[in-house]
Amino acid sequence: MAFPEPRNTGMLYRPLGKSGLYVSAISLGGWMTYGGYAADETAFDCMKKAYDLGINFFDNAENYAAGQSEIVMGKAIKHFGWKRSDLVISTKVNWGAVNGEILINNHGLSRKHIIEGLTSSLERLQLPYVDIVYAHRPDRLVPMEETVRAFNYVINAGMAFYWGTSEWSADEIQEAVGIAKQLGLIAPIVEQPQYNMLVRDKVEGQFQRLYSRMGLGLTTFSPIKMGVLSGKYNDVVDGQPPKDSRFGASSERFAAMMRERMGSATDDSWKREIEIVKKLKPIADKLGVTQSQLALAWCLKNPNVSSVITGASRPEQLEENVKALAVLNKLTPEVMDEIDEITGNKVTLDPARQD
Amino acid sequence: MAFPEPRNTGMLYRPLGKSGLYVSAISLGGWMTYGGYAADETAFDCMKKAYDLGINFFDNAENYAAGQSEIVMGKAIKHFGWKRSDLVISTKVNWGAVNGEILINNHGLSRKHIIEGLTSSLERLQLPYVDIVYAHRPDRLVPMEETVRAFNYVINAGMAFYWGTSEWSADEIQEAVGIAKQLGLIAPIVEQPQYNMLVRDKVEGQFQRLYSRMGLGLTTFSPIKMGVLSGKYNDVVDGQPPKDSRFGASSERFAAMMRERMGSATDDSWKREIEIVKKLKPIADKLGVTQSQLALAWCLKNPNVSSVITGASRPEQLEENVKALAVLNKLTPEVMDEIDEITGNKVTLDPARQD
Amino acid sequence: MAFPEPRNTGMLYRPLGKSGLYVSAISLGGWMTYGGYAADETAFDCMKKAYDLGINFFDNAENYAAGQSEIVMGKAIKHFGWKRSDLVISTKVNWGAVNGEILINNHGLSRKHIIEGLTSSLERLQLPYVDIVYAHRPDRLVPMEETVRAFNYVINAGMAFYWGTSEWSADEIQEAVGIAKQLGLIAPIVEQPQYNMLVRDKVEGQFQRLYSRMGLGLTTFSPIKMGVLSGKYNDVVDGQPPKDSRFGASSERFAAMMRERMGSATDDSWKREIEIVKKLKPIADKLGVTQSQLALAWCLKNPNVSSVITGASRPEQLEENVKALAVLNKLTPEVMDEIDEITGNKVTLDPARQD
Amino acid sequence: MAFPEPRNTGMLYRPLGKSGLYVSAISLGGWMTYGGYAADETAFDCMKKAYDLGINFFDNAENYAAGQSEIVMGKAIKHFGWKRSDLVISTKVNWGAVNGEILINNHGLSRKHIIEGLTSSLERLQLPYVDIVYAHRPDRLVPMEETVRAFNYVINAGMAFYWGTSEWSADEIQEAVGIAKQLGLIAPIVEQPQYNMLVRDKVEGQFQRLYSRMGLGLTTFSPIKMGVLSGKYNDVVDGQPPKDSRFGASSERFAAMMRERMGSATDDSWKREIEIVKKLKPIADKLGVTQSQLALAWCLKNPNVSSVITGASRPEQLEENVKALAVLNKLTPEVMDEIDEITGNKVTLDPARQD
Repeated sequence: MAFPEPRNTGMLYRPLGKSGLYVSAISLGGWMTYGGYAADETAFDCMKKAYDLGINFFDNAENYAAGQSEIVMGKAIKHFGWKRSDLVISTKVNWGAVNGEILINNHGLSRKHIIEGLTSSLERLQLPYVDIVYAHRPDRLVPMEETVRAFNYVINAGMAFYWGTSEWSADEIQEAVGIAKQLGLIAPIVEQPQYNMLVRDKVEGQFQRLYSRMGLGLTTFSPIKMGVLSGKYNDVVDGQPPKDSRFGASSERFAAMMRERMGSATDDSWKREIEIVKKLKPIADKLGVTQSQLALAWCLKNPNVSSVITGASRPEQLEENVKALAVLNKLTPEVMDEIDEITGNKVTLDPARQD
Repeated sequence: MAFPEPRNTGMLYRPLGKSGLYVSAISLGGWMTYGGYAADETAFDCMKKAYDLGINFFDNAENYAAGQSEIVMGKAIKHFGWKRSDLVISTKVNWGAVNGEILINNHGLSRKHIIEGLTSSLERLQLPYVDIVYAHRPDRLVPMEETVRAFNYVINAGMAFYWGTSEWSADEIQEAVGIAKQLGLIAPIVEQPQYNMLVRDKVEGQFQRLYSRMGLGLTTFSPIKMGVLSGKYNDVVDGQPPKDSRFGASSERFAAMMRERMGSATDDSWKREIEIVKKLKPIADKLGVTQSQLALAWCLKNPNVSSVITGASRPEQLEENVKALAVLNKLTPEVMDEIDEITGNKVTLDPARQD
Repeated sequence: MAFPEPRNTGMLYRPLGKSGLYVSAISLGGWMTYGGYAADETAFDCMKKAYDLGINFFDNAENYAAGQSEIVMGKAIKHFGWKRSDLVISTKVNWGAVNGEILINNHGLSRKHIIEGLTSSLERLQLPYVDIVYAHRPDRLVPMEETVRAFNYVINAGMAFYWGTSEWSADEIQEAVGIAKQLGLIAPIVEQPQYNMLVRDKVEGQFQRLYSRMGLGLTTFSPIKMGVLSGKYNDVVDGQPPKDSRFGASSERFAAMMRERMGSATDDSWKREIEIVKKLKPIADKLGVTQSQLALAWCLKNPNVSSVITGASRPEQLEENVKALAVLNKLTPEVMDEIDEITGNKVTLDPARQD
Repeated sequence: MAFPEPRNTGMLYRPLGKSGLYVSAISLGGWMTYGGYAADETAFDCMKKAYDLGINFFDNAENYAAGQSEIVMGKAIKHFGWKRSDLVISTKVNWGAVNGEILINNHGLSRKHIIEGLTSSLERLQLPYVDIVYAHRPDRLVPMEETVRAFNYVINAGMAFYWGTSEWSADEIQEAVGIAKQLGLIAPIVEQPQYNMLVRDKVEGQFQRLYSRMGLGLTTFSPIKMGVLSGKYNDVVDGQPPKDSRFGASSERFAAMMRERMGSATDDSWKREIEIVKKLKPIADKLGVTQSQLALAWCLKNPNVSSVITGASRPEQLEENVKALAVLNKLTPEVMDEIDEITGNKVTLDPARQD
């Protein structure tokens, strides 16, 4: 009998925090894409490309494209006949796999929804279990004990191997850990926050003690901040897109879109962000990479980041993303300092002791 | 047998978080004053005045005036023959009762220093116990379990009734609570942060979930931010003190002093702060109070604040401070909104749930 | 109703440590043989012979012959229609059922691989559960708590009855026991180390306190140290095989093979070992047994050994092995002392107390 | 009031494992000296010199000179009026403060002897508490739970701040930790083993996982192996002392003394050790230090060593010892490799994972 050759793709794998699970440093997320924008066929092509590039971690959520994202990913896994143990599949519960208005009990972090939500996710994925189930945002109306117990229920029921959080605060993660310890239950091992050159506070500041104290791992999203860090708005001057762009003369429509991305109808800090991104271009040029690759590699220089979740609506994008790994050793302390000076948002660590 | 009439001073008392301990809404702290600037006699007068005004909570630390503050307060308590149970006495360990360089093991939150430090404080105070012992700043080089156990030791040894923290982060407080729960030990019940109209982030933001979840109480310091909120710098224009002030023409010496108060040699945000304080004056005038009283009363409008610690180098200051209580019901939602607009630093609460 | 006569084979059964499980003192392992060298038919014959001789314990691992060993054993069990409860079947997880390079997550002691690995083993064995699942070597990159919890998961899921370790150190076994006790979980009950006349340190030295303190049982492998103790190299003189052997004049090829067995390319202590084995021959002769039988019986004189795992590529070997049981009572203290003198490696026990 | 100047002695302080207690890298032990050989006056002089050199850790045991060592140290502390919090005082229980034959219950690690033994030690030391109490050797006849509980009793009674072990095995330390965790009690934080260039197995091998896993600290004894590493036997040739030495022509008397030091009447490995020490001389010469200083500094290069306990019967010896600190940065990786080659006993670490 002949055994298959092990795949050697050059991919980098990292343990998820202090756990025994290894995830590819670059991963593929279903948000905004599969089940939504991209046709199923395109999603299949992207997943095939990801797998061939050595990506083993595929991130999902019950509410991505109202459940369609899980359906597409599940179909692809079946279609390609991949071995389950070679994959790390995640999903997230909180918002329900629904379109439009959310129904009572069909979201949140109650015992009812965590169990029912994950059950539905597994049906859509056509899988008996996920590797990681995340609490998609905190639900502050539910007692933490109920949430911690429910995640332990699904793990003990064989529906998931590990659990984590997404966009929780440091004190909430510590509260969950404390309750898990008190009750002899399994604590969360991973948090999924936004992290990129422009948004660093939580990962580098608020969470700074969680890495060593509780072994927190990170899978981060938005490495190019919805396109801004790719440099695609570098020709915007004073918040004004070029006359010949699709926004034409309508700088107001452009501003509205950018404000929406900032999560606030009055926040115009996107203008400042575009100016920062322009200044990063020479660094990318010097290193011989695109600004997107620079942005992605920069995230991975942080040793607390286990995996950077990327989106892809075309297989070529994944190839481009994975090239970012080659830049890692070019990001010397000097280059990192240069970037810090441009972004101006380096986080000062709390002193260990105040003498 | 006739019982003495209880003292009716008009003072407001609040429970310390969810604990059973009641503290006067306005309290007297020994920082920067007793054992330092003020002569012992003055300190005695202030304490007498405080007591007569119904203040029951006297705050101390081992390192205030290198231990002299505790000595003075202890003498006063003995001198006036006050009943111990009528008083709430606190102290804080971490920095040692030393002047200048700190010696090895004579500071920090090790078991050794917590026990030895509090033992020394009690000797200086001439008291068998304090009501509250605080961890004065975090010590991130010591395992949290060692610190939690040591505070429980001093409580179980009858040296303190409750323990709390000062200037800790939310995740550290939650970590301490989690460890206490896991080990069946007593958790901290109170945090002592800076809090005033100009510094709100921690109390209103970072700590927001700790009040209801773990019953955290607050004793806050710096209600007028080292004088700034009293309006005493209102005649400073563009960072320039008036020619006839004690800083004379030397605006540089003034700037240096203000920067030191901000805790940074390059931080010139004190200029912006003075401008804000100027704009608060009309509100104080309208309410018929001093700016200091407004600032103090404003802190107490926050129901999570159990007590505002004030300093006093003259008994009259205490009388002025306590008058702030009379303003409390004049601080209507409309007035509070007006203040928020001027300070521009109202904290947006995290959503309970993200729907 | 008449009950069938129990099989009386003369086999000796011992409890596995302090557990309630009984294993045959001599057992059959699939390493190096089934799925590998031996044809399936031969494997069937050996298993049949083993069963008829009263052997009830069949030892396996996911990585023996890359999973083929489990497949062959599973087929044999089905083929002969043996009653499941009459058998003690074990397997081991850690290295994956793969040949050559090991894939990410497909080995190690993470929750993911312990559950997925055992699931695959059970599929190959065509069994709903094994009696014992071992951690095949320690994985020091995974937190012990994750490993202890995962073995408890598979036990609670009905996939295994007991769990144990293989080639762990004493402090790691104690750490696992401590965590299991702290969390109210099931601790490991058995360790599988190498043990023979030439390799005694771990079983007699390092583990000496684990037998009574935590009730550790032992299933040992390599009783004749890959053939050396059988005396088959007794005609090697000064490390030089006889001219007419299959190594011919090539003493270098022989040395290379022996060094590989020692686990080190530079270790020539096999020469010394052969000299020791030569000196053991008169003892075997005096007792009227082969050197292999002497070596095997010697292992079983250690009351902490529950079962000695033997390999067999021909049914006759099993018959020879089981004859070793008859020698047990001939191994008097005097004979054991004689052996100790020759091997020169008797372990001095740590004193119970130092007075 | 004037505060005393903090002492700046140039001494190096290290935390004891992961605890919050800091000990001087070089410490003074009472073994074999105080209460024994040295007159009280000499002991006082040595302790004064140690204190002046910045040594804060003084190590004792109930059985050193049958209790006289504690008596002398206690007198010195009182005599010099040192502040208790500036000192780290340890003692050890197990063998009783007796001369000659040991009485029943007056030794061992029973609850009775741990409490009674430490009580007596504190009386001899004239102190209310020690900082560290060690279990002086394991007592395998007492259940570990009884021992762990008794050490927690003395800590909770305020008789000690921390507890540790001396010459325990790794599995025993892990057993104690596991029981402490299970029962919510305080675990040992420090082990006191022998450690020097000639004896490395336990510290570098057996204990290798305890440092990071349980935060074990080390205070080590015998840095120059009872004089051997000082080079004072360098003129011994083939185990034969020079004719004009105090052993004269009697090489047998010398051999007897050396064998006794090895702890075995038949062990002649001291001959090999002397040959090794001779070869280390050129390294000491090159660095411009004595062989003793080299041996002491070498111990401190191991980051897991918190403090090296030295003996001194004359104050000058302490000055010589402390000079070893100046050599630390001269011990480059190259020099350390050179030493490893000469001693030939570098410990190979266990692999993290076996792939």
